[in-house]
Amino acid sequence: MTDQPTLAELDAANPFADRHIGPDASAVAAMLERLGYASLDDLMDVAVPATIRDRVVDLALPPAADEATVAAELRALAGRNAPGVSMVGLGYHPTVTPPVIRRNVLEDPSWYTAYTPYQPEISQGRLEALLNFQTMVGDLTGLPTANASLLDEGTAAAEAMTLVRRAQRRATGPFVVDADALPQTIAVVETRAAAMGIEVVVADLTDGLPADLAASGVCGTLVQYPGASGRVRDPRPAVEATHAAGGLVVVAADLLALTLLESPGALGADVAIGSTQRFGVPLFHGGPHAAYMSVRAGLERSLPGRLVGVSVDAEGRPAYRLALQTREQHIRRDKATSNICTAQVLLAVAASMYAVHHGPEGLRTIARRTHRYAAVLAAAVRAGGGEVVADELFDTVLVRVPGAAGGVVDAARERGIHLRGVDADHVAVSTAETTTRGILADVLAALATALPRVADLDLDDLDRATPDALPDALRRSTAYLTHEVFSAHRSETQMLRYLRRLSARDYALDRGMIPLGSCTMKLNATTEMEPISLPGFADLHPFVPAEAADGYASLVTDLEGWLAEVTGYDRVSIQPNAGSQGELAGLLAIRGYHRANGDAQRDVCLIPSSAHGTNAASAVMAGMRVVVVASRDDGSVDLDDLRAACEEHAETLAAIMVTYPSTHGVYEGAITELCEVVHAHGGQVYVDGANLNALVGHARPGAFGGDVSHLNLHKTFCIPHGGGGPGVGPVAVRSHLAPYLPSHPFHPDAERREGIGPISAAPLGSAGILPISWAYVRLMGAAGLARATAVAVLAANYVAARLEDHFPVLYRGEAGLVAHECILDLRPLTKATGVTVDDVAKRLVDYGFHAPTMSFPVAGTLMVEPTESEDLGEIDRFCDAMVAIRAEIARVADGEWSAEDSPLRHAPHTTRALVGPWERAYDREVGVFPQGHDPDKYWPPVGRIDQAYGDRNLVCACPPPDAFAE
Amino acid sequence: MTDQPTLAELDAANPFADRHIGPDASAVAAMLERLGYASLDDLMDVAVPATIRDRVVDLALPPAADEATVAAELRALAGRNAPGVSMVGLGYHPTVTPPVIRRNVLEDPSWYTAYTPYQPEISQGRLEALLNFQTMVGDLTGLPTANASLLDEGTAAAEAMTLVRRAQRRATGPFVVDADALPQTIAVVETRAAAMGIEVVVADLTDGLPADLAASGVCGTLVQYPGASGRVRDPRPAVEATHAAGGLVVVAADLLALTLLESPGALGADVAIGSTQRFGVPLFHGGPHAAYMSVRAGLERSLPGRLVGVSVDAEGRPAYRLALQTREQHIRRDKATSNICTAQVLLAVAASMYAVHHGPEGLRTIARRTHRYAAVLAAAVRAGGGEVVADELFDTVLVRVPGAAGGVVDAARERGIHLRGVDADHVAVSTAETTTRGILADVLAALATALPRVADLDLDDLDRATPDALPDALRRSTAYLTHEVFSAHRSETQMLRYLRRLSARDYALDRGMIPLGSCTMKLNATTEMEPISLPGFADLHPFVPAEAADGYASLVTDLEGWLAEVTGYDRVSIQPNAGSQGELAGLLAIRGYHRANGDAQRDVCLIPSSAHGTNAASAVMAGMRVVVVASRDDGSVDLDDLRAACEEHAETLAAIMVTYPSTHGVYEGAITELCEVVHAHGGQVYVDGANLNALVGHARPGAFGGDVSHLNLHKTFCIPHGGGGPGVGPVAVRSHLAPYLPSHPFHPDAERREGIGPISAAPLGSAGILPISWAYVRLMGAAGLARATAVAVLAANYVAARLEDHFPVLYRGEAGLVAHECILDLRPLTKATGVTVDDVAKRLVDYGFHAPTMSFPVAGTLMVEPTESEDLGEIDRFCDAMVAIRAEIARVADGEWSAEDSPLRHAPHTTRALVGPWERAYDREVGVFPQGHDPDKYWPPVGRIDQAYGDRNLVCACPPPDAFAE
Repeated sequence: MTDQPTLAELDAANPFADRHIGPDASAVAAMLERLGYASLDDLMDVAVPATIRDRVVDLALPPAADEATVAAELRALAGRNAPGVSMVGLGYHPTVTPPVIRRNVLEDPSWYTAYTPYQPEISQGRLEALLNFQTMVGDLTGLPTANASLLDEGTAAAEAMTLVRRAQRRATGPFVVDADALPQTIAVVETRAAAMGIEVVVADLTDGLPADLAASGVCGTLVQYPGASGRVRDPRPAVEATHAAGGLVVVAADLLALTLLESPGALGADVAIGSTQRFGVPLFHGGPHAAYMSVRAGLERSLPGRLVGVSVDAEGRPAYRLALQTREQHIRRDKATSNICTAQVLLAVAASMYAVHHGPEGLRTIARRTHRYAAVLAAAVRAGGGEVVADELFDTVLVRVPGAAGGVVDAARERGIHLRGVDADHVAVSTAETTTRGILADVLAALATALPRVADLDLDDLDRATPDALPDALRRSTAYLTHEVFSAHRSETQMLRYLRRLSARDYALDRGMIPLGSCTMKLNATTEMEPISLPGFADLHPFVPAEAADGYASLVTDLEGWLAEVTGYDRVSIQPNAGSQGELAGLLAIRGYHRANGDAQRDVCLIPSSAHGTNAASAVMAGMRVVVVASRDDGSVDLDDLRAACEEHAETLAAIMVTYPSTHGVYEGAITELCEVVHAHGGQVYVDGANLNALVGHARPGAFGGDVSHLNLHKTFCIPHGGGGPGVGPVAVRSHLAPYLPSHPFHPDAERREGIGPISAAPLGSAGILPISWAYVRLMGAAGLARATAVAVLAANYVAARLEDHFPVLYRGEAGLVAHECILDLRPLTKATGVTVDDVAKRLVDYGFHAPTMSFPVAGTLMVEPTESEDLGEIDRFCDAMVAIRAEIARVADGEWSAEDSPLRHAPHTTRALVGPWERAYDREVGVFPQGHDPDKYWPPVGRIDQAYGDRNLVCACPPPDAFAE
Repeated sequence: MTDQPTLAELDAANPFADRHIGPDASAVAAMLERLGYASLDDLMDVAVPATIRDRVVDLALPPAADEATVAAELRALAGRNAPGVSMVGLGYHPTVTPPVIRRNVLEDPSWYTAYTPYQPEISQGRLEALLNFQTMVGDLTGLPTANASLLDEGTAAAEAMTLVRRAQRRATGPFVVDADALPQTIAVVETRAAAMGIEVVVADLTDGLPADLAASGVCGTLVQYPGASGRVRDPRPAVEATHAAGGLVVVAADLLALTLLESPGALGADVAIGSTQRFGVPLFHGGPHAAYMSVRAGLERSLPGRLVGVSVDAEGRPAYRLALQTREQHIRRDKATSNICTAQVLLAVAASMYAVHHGPEGLRTIARRTHRYAAVLAAAVRAGGGEVVADELFDTVLVRVPGAAGGVVDAARERGIHLRGVDADHVAVSTAETTTRGILADVLAALATALPRVADLDLDDLDRATPDALPDALRRSTAYLTHEVFSAHRSETQMLRYLRRLSARDYALDRGMIPLGSCTMKLNATTEMEPISLPGFADLHPFVPAEAADGYASLVTDLEGWLAEVTGYDRVSIQPNAGSQGELAGLLAIRGYHRANGDAQRDVCLIPSSAHGTNAASAVMAGMRVVVVASRDDGSVDLDDLRAACEEHAETLAAIMVTYPSTHGVYEGAITELCEVVHAHGGQVYVDGANLNALVGHARPGAFGGDVSHLNLHKTFCIPHGGGGPGVGPVAVRSHLAPYLPSHPFHPDAERREGIGPISAAPLGSAGILPISWAYVRLMGAAGLARATAVAVLAANYVAARLEDHFPVLYRGEAGLVAHECILDLRPLTKATGVTVDDVAKRLVDYGFHAPTMSFPVAGTLMVEPTESEDLGEIDRFCDAMVAIRAEIARVADGEWSAEDSPLRHAPHTTRALVGPWERAYDREVGVFPQGHDPDKYWPPVGRIDQAYGDRNLVCACPPPDAFAE
């Protein structure tokens, strides 16, 4: 009757997808026109092979909701969790995130949208923060070289196990794990060890090694300090016995306790590991948190993960960058003994800033308070006639209450407090920074159900009468956090400015495009990010009873279901807390399947030559042998070679690992045939989900032949890269592999407690950031997700079309299209002019861009992935810059400039380059404003960094301030 | 028994005051040593006159709490408010704050810690945002020149009333206000008019002016569009009648409605006013929000408040700055007809960014949805047999339900919805951006208690059957938001980058010190800021029943009590939402008191010659005559002149307005005597609280002679300046003035509904940001507040001591000390060299600082206020910069450089100055890096701005993009 739009139409107007996707309808039309397609559907019909596309269905996802609705739903889910007061301990402790750090790091896009600092000149801020982290860890553990964080304490222990094996050529014997280690640490270590064929023995290490092990030799020992029981034991008997038995010693230490207890290094440890969570990082129901690892001199080059070091720039000034990168898995491939790609940079930054904020004295005060509450509690138990199992303790009081533990735990829960019921006879109470007198009184009231006399005690009397409960022999005598950065930012104003100064040095998505091929640097929308700060999500301990985590359970059920739907698999586990862990979990599932079928001999993993190095490293960690399959000239897997390899290894074939679209950014038409060949030879197909951003809504790996995939939620599903972590790498499997998904002894779902073991320290991995991906799927709906994929493919092809006359596009699919990224081949230009990919990458900084991926998967090339979130204006600005740089290369080719004295080689240009004498072949203005003056220009704080210098002169802790004197 | 610190000691360690106060104990000791004092107490004993200091007592405030405790308490208070679904309307509507704007503007220190853009070269980001605001308002209202926001719609209406009077020399007759205007608008206008002796008539303007007024003439008319009843009337009859009667027309318009309704300008209005709250700004229980005002050509120079305009910089490029500043109250003093100092910049930025985010099409869709829900609701009422009072409506449906209104309101409340019960027979329902079908269904269910048949209606049927309810004659035909900024940032990535690009142009407290004398730019701590985003505080309508605002009531009771305690007064009202409004409220209290005493003739207000211009403007607005009292050479009030003035005006003396410490930054010893003299002559003493940061915890104006003060919560009590607002200016009085504090017809406390009338549109003023000051007092405790004051005084004296050999310090107290700020006299240097305060101020930018206050209170000087929050390192860095600048002036004095070709005159230097030819008398490096290269340097985006050019060539809307072409 009226010509007005209806309410339904108006309610559906302006979907979130229009905010997520950069090009609007008119831009999409213009880009399609340039490519000669009539619609996004037409483009995708041609780009995606019909063999896989015709199986696509409309995804069964909830309809897209608007931002306010999704925010409300997530608030409701958070409200269904009951964080209460967490005193469960076991490596997870409540802490006060300093609000200035929460707001200006964890909630600040300039920190959380940054990428891994592979381009160090534009990453000096977070590199400094990570160097602070390393210095903090090195100081507190008394071991000089710390890496820039690991995924969690459990995997850090597993990494330490493999470290001690590779660090000692003649190591023999088992790896011995303290019986008083955290239970989840033991479980993660055992899972890893089983796959790699390492023998693990769990033993009481209080008085050193058991006699049989001391005699037969060990490769290493892990000692928990303080122990899971709360007991603070002297590690030295274990250290001495282990060294005598030819092994190295790993101490898993609580960083806060180390402010009062002597450092592992001073006690003889070779390696220290642990969590930095209680340094201001929310509990997050188990993660993400930054674990740490530090080593004594001589073991630096065996460290897994990333390591920040100091080098010099082209102007001779100190500059930070990642050190010793040749250690890393992407270089070592099947020689690697770790597959770690991701650190937990954002959380490591937060933890290090907590130390900067509090300084050594502040940390010591927090530790003393924490300890004092525990000491007074222990005294109260004893005064009340109870028994404390370990008298020497830091923060955990293990109380013996025969038959009454359940009642005490229940009584505490009625008061909103989560305690740890160890067994029917024991309750453990862990104090923390957040413990107050009121909480202590409530704990005593709960204990009074078993020990009635504690109800009558006066806390102040007890406090006065109770000495500290730390062993005198282990009181800390060595200094820590003596570098001035840990005492220079004590006021909030100073802290705020320090955080801003650092983030202003870095280039993140808040400044402009980061067109990193294979990394999918897309929008991390605020609506997706805000919920992770909600107390219901942030403050929940990972080991609370299921009824206290109902919101998380619901969220995880949704998300695992949606991810299964999107990928075409039957079952998903979100436990793996990085892509590398998802890979390992997927391969362990394959391993478990073969073994269950009596095919334990199936241990060959085929990997195409173009694969990411992590694939090979993961295969080795899963106990497999890597066999490389050749690529053809067009970059695709050589099916003939594949068939031959399958034939050759028919009896032992375990799997193939293949990335789809390929690491070359191409939809290979033969993928279905490849799957069939492998299946025909008894192998399983592992489809690496790194490039899932080119598939969602258009093809499903679980439907076109994959048996298992891992997904990178920090790529396709909008978890921000955080400057180099956190990541989340769920594993998705078809039903025959589902029994072999990760389990966890503390999993809230009883059915998932037994199995192949945990791949992460927490049952739900990095639970705290799963709301981000949940929100993304909920906001986009099936149609939005499919449109995002199509626009990502459109954008990559648009870039290829705009740049192909300037730089050859290396690989294309059969229809002449790339997938979601394209490889620009610089090798002919380099050969002709000497201008390298490095030169182009650094020169892009002068033009206001982060470089594309360099020399992966093909040395001498740049791989560009614009993603769907970049608008046409920004994409054109990037293409214009590349065209302009090509013209600069032409001037080198023409002899106008030498490569050595060109703006390309001198890039990036700093403000220092602007003043003083100028004796270069090009004008100052050409150097710094190649496209005219820009008052908003991003200025890199340092010039080109000398990578080799830093590796020759390894410095991995904060240099003294006078190193920076001008 | 033990030597351990006790729990109590450990619990009290690391108080928040140590985070708020910049200098730590060792820095305080060093600063005291430099000044020759043994302790802060010693310093304050000497600095503060004994006559006022000896009345100081330990303040009765709650003990200091830690940050986590305060955060928890504020969450609990927020939880005691019940925002529900607000459909009350009357100028306040729920809206969706786009999360990208919330996180990156409202919650971002780079926006909220900025100061008013008086230094335009380092404020280009927020000036652009404000120019967008002006363009948005100008477009939507159809009136070309809009200011940069006003305090609220009520005061904007009052300002419009005075505007129409001053714009017409021959204006006679009353100011006529629409009977269908918002009730709080009518009340605020009447309060203002009463004091200024303006006659206000409230009349039905539907068909034009009442005949008597048409005949006798009016000075102006205010028409509400749409009306409070929801009715959309054609303003043209009123416009034509008013013009015919010799008056000007003000249209108070709903900005969202204007996306569908023809603009006031197109309908003949001279002035438009209103609120921009529903453009993404939270309800905040009434404020802060940005009101707007726009005028037709010819009235620009009569606009009150701030006006951003376009000018050019020294490099000839367009640059933004405040225009026509000679209009402003601080220049016009007692010639002013407005005392507005503060705009609502932060909220204006948010509202303008909402328009940028949605663009014209997005806004139109939101308006259509809002309207459609209202139209369908009205149709439902009619279909259900009910009566809708006004059929032509935008978003408000006034339903006649004889005798049943209360029941409907209650039924809605049970469903969590706040409706407006107009009287026993009428209920009004206002739809908004947040209205959903579910909400509409709940409203119908509530209405069904009176109109049972509405329960059976099918919404979709109604929707299809119901035409829009806008009058055809008023459908919008004119375009709006056609500038490209309103269509260039549609994706969230674009929006994020735009916000970052703008804030990166500005210098705020997150970069460094802003040593603005009289402005108290101190820390705005995150713990203070975070709670304002809590839904319980952010989403509450101001006119909900008291039981829905229990948390706010408790918070306001606390805060008013604490402020009374701190200032020594008996009663406080937090209603005034800016310092200027607090001043006016205080003077109105004095006026009310004198009139109640039968002393209506007491209308002389004494104002020292050094007073801030706003004092005089406020006095005029309170209906007083200003008499200036002379100052002595030392800057203090000339008591002899005061006595003479009191004698001369003994019969008519109303008050004296005096700032303490004085605007010269000095504790005048004679303050008690001054108060006695004025009191002896029947006058009241108004102590301007602008400098309260030098008193808290050490002297109390209410105890040393003041009868009334206003406080600037945005100075002493940590509400951030927001780039030029919001402010909050509570008024504090002794008990005899308490009956004359602001009232409000909708005040939650029934006792405060009747009285002198409201000073602000909302009963609790800017309620939404009061948690900030509450948190500050709660975190600091009495001792912390007193220490903050002492350190602020210490810091100012330290600066004076460090700089006195380089620049004469103009005024000091009797003991040779300044209070919390010091004035540096540049006049001798200017006379000798031609280097001006402007030159020094701009040169400080090159050194990385915001300038001190320029030429206030004495022309040719700089007033420096470091505040307690700046650490010694930053203070020394500032002093070093000033010393270095003094050396540069010496080079001018020595003839090495001319003033015209010195780095001082060419300051600030941009990156443009770095490239291209260089023909200046000094090196490029001296220009940009006067203290050596700094990779973290802040670069101003434009050079020195030509103020006069912009006033001669007034442009107050966004210039076309090609104006910026390089």
